[in-house]
Amino acid sequence: MSSIYLDNASSTLIDKKVLQVMQEKINIYGNPSSIHSHGRIAKAEIENSRNIISDILDLNNNQILFTSGGTESNNMAIYGVIESYAIKNIITSNIEHLSVLNYTKFISQKYNIKITYIKVDLNGNIDYQLLYDTLKNNYNNKISTLVSIMHANNEIGNIYDIKSIGIMCRKYNAIYHCDTIQTIGHLKIDDLFIKNTDIITCSGHKIHGPKGIGFICFNRNIQILPILLGGNQENNIRSGTENFIGIIGLAKALEISYNSIDKNINHISNIKSYMINQLTKNIINIKFNGNSNFLNKSIHTILNVVLPIKKNLGKDIIMYMDINNISVSNGSACNSGANNISHVINHINHENIHSSIRFSFSKFTNKYEIDKSIKVLTDLL
Amino acid sequence: MSSIYLDNASSTLIDKKVLQVMQEKINIYGNPSSIHSHGRIAKAEIENSRNIISDILDLNNNQILFTSGGTESNNMAIYGVIESYAIKNIITSNIEHLSVLNYTKFISQKYNIKITYIKVDLNGNIDYQLLYDTLKNNYNNKISTLVSIMHANNEIGNIYDIKSIGIMCRKYNAIYHCDTIQTIGHLKIDDLFIKNTDIITCSGHKIHGPKGIGFICFNRNIQILPILLGGNQENNIRSGTENFIGIIGLAKALEISYNSIDKNINHISNIKSYMINQLTKNIINIKFNGNSNFLNKSIHTILNVVLPIKKNLGKDIIMYMDINNISVSNGSACNSGANNISHVINHINHENIHSSIRFSFSKFTNKYEIDKSIKVLTDLL
Repeated sequence: MSSIYLDNASSTLIDKKVLQVMQEKINIYGNPSSIHSHGRIAKAEIENSRNIISDILDLNNNQILFTSGGTESNNMAIYGVIESYAIKNIITSNIEHLSVLNYTKFISQKYNIKITYIKVDLNGNIDYQLLYDTLKNNYNNKISTLVSIMHANNEIGNIYDIKSIGIMCRKYNAIYHCDTIQTIGHLKIDDLFIKNTDIITCSGHKIHGPKGIGFICFNRNIQILPILLGGNQENNIRSGTENFIGIIGLAKALEISYNSIDKNINHISNIKSYMINQLTKNIINIKFNGNSNFLNKSIHTILNVVLPIKKNLGKDIIMYMDINNISVSNGSACNSGANNISHVINHINHENIHSSIRFSFSKFTNKYEIDKSIKVLTDLL
Repeated sequence: MSSIYLDNASSTLIDKKVLQVMQEKINIYGNPSSIHSHGRIAKAEIENSRNIISDILDLNNNQILFTSGGTESNNMAIYGVIESYAIKNIITSNIEHLSVLNYTKFISQKYNIKITYIKVDLNGNIDYQLLYDTLKNNYNNKISTLVSIMHANNEIGNIYDIKSIGIMCRKYNAIYHCDTIQTIGHLKIDDLFIKNTDIITCSGHKIHGPKGIGFICFNRNIQILPILLGGNQENNIRSGTENFIGIIGLAKALEISYNSIDKNINHISNIKSYMINQLTKNIINIKFNGNSNFLNKSIHTILNVVLPIKKNLGKDIIMYMDINNISVSNGSACNSGANNISHVINHINHENIHSSIRFSFSKFTNKYEIDKSIKVLTDLL
């Protein structure tokens, strides 16, 4: 039996057209910083990739910097702003990705910066009024607050109102870093609200591109200081010889995503609706984490399910599904290696006594795979 | 006419066997941190790559961590040691790669750490007695000194006596970080003196592997704190989803290098000797920077030439060579984008009034290319 992959929020199959362009260009070998023709050819390809991305996002190409992926992009945004501005307050949430959660915790302690976690309710919704009040209370005519709240949660799929958050941040002179790793390439450009944010981040392998490559975008005139120092590549903000073939693949992946964004959203939303219906029909007492069963309040790619099974069996369910050739997860891949239970699920539901599974879909997912997965799941139950 | 590439210290042609294995494995797409089969397949490939490298270097596999390249590896080593130990002194030189030079400068200012630059003479040789005395004067029974001195200089090719430096560092309780980016994959394992160093670094694209991937190796029981935080990949020291295909390519590149290391050293040393002889024969008043014309005192891959042409014409020479389809550089690629004159050449020869060109060779370089390059150069002169 061929395998079923429903863990696309962890990583995605590289698109064939991405593979093709990577294979075509993989033996361009000059150092992009070299001034001779070998270097210039490599440089031109990188700048072409940057232009593809900036054109799609309707930004200038100097607003896009390539990094080694989502974690570096998020760390770099937070570090860079804190080093560059006299930040006294960090406002974030407890359900951010670990690259934001762990980094803000670390840096707030190190620099003695006050950190405020905006409360989230049992459905994973953040308290916008509290955010507004916190911003207002910390208002300063010189930038002194950094907000880091993600666009869509990578585990429960909740979409946050980043347009409003952005407007609040502008009003009260805060810098808004938004982790958009689960939304760039998945939501329409208008729905990314880039102009309302200050810094957004992207990872290639969430959008059918390669791993180990990502970018950071700057909106407004945000100046950050670099976390890596050396030869001053990437407009003096990210030193290190560029991941040439990763950049090529990333740009192509983003291009492909936006060439068929409506079709993809439609297809994946249908898959998700279908799965919600089938799960509800077939499994008594099934529940959903966060807003993931509300299509208008969550990203179409993620469905997080609460099974009527004891919490400490979560890993066993994943393994049982795996034996049946179905790949799903119980949260962020970044957690699963350590065999931890998701910090997001734990945080939103302190009294949670059941096991959760995250199903996450891609343009390649089909209804047969959903039927088969539900069959395996109901057999288990 | 096909092009001639003599800038291998900047970046190298990816070996065909590296390309082949990358192409074979590029569509393994699971997240290596996922516990399901897609994840485990990716994880197994990464661990296999790590084992290839640790076997070659005669280390345990937990001593090898993958990074986004040489710059991150060098930054991470310096930052990680300083965060982890109560470092009060940094000892380094003014001719390190910018990823060490700029980073040690930055962090010594930020943390108020004393930085001592060991003097180098007109040939780029460091003053070992001064290093010894500095180490002795800073001796502390608790580790408080970090030494960062490279193995082979990326511009002038000088090889430093890292075995002795390592012995001095052990004696006086200092941590020794050695930038081995120009030597791993190029020198025999015994000549890397890994057991005498504490931390060494490597970059894939200097050894016929891909760009944007590298590793850091820990010898002894050095504990460093991470520069990037998130999902705790790479033994909790380097967060971020791994550059899967880069890792595959890097391990293969290192394997290929060491499968024919004697042959490569012999071939490239012959090329270098030949070029020294032909240049000396054909260009009156030709000189060499550093020890690069002494085969036993410099890396066989690098030859740095002083031409009887005014200093400010360096870039014009590179461009003239380029028009003739020959790629050479006037120093580190990391400098050349900014059109700077090499900090290494400037530092060792304050009264330098001539233009320098760095020729750097690989196993693919042949004598015809050397003849042709010298012909173009003599025509210009």
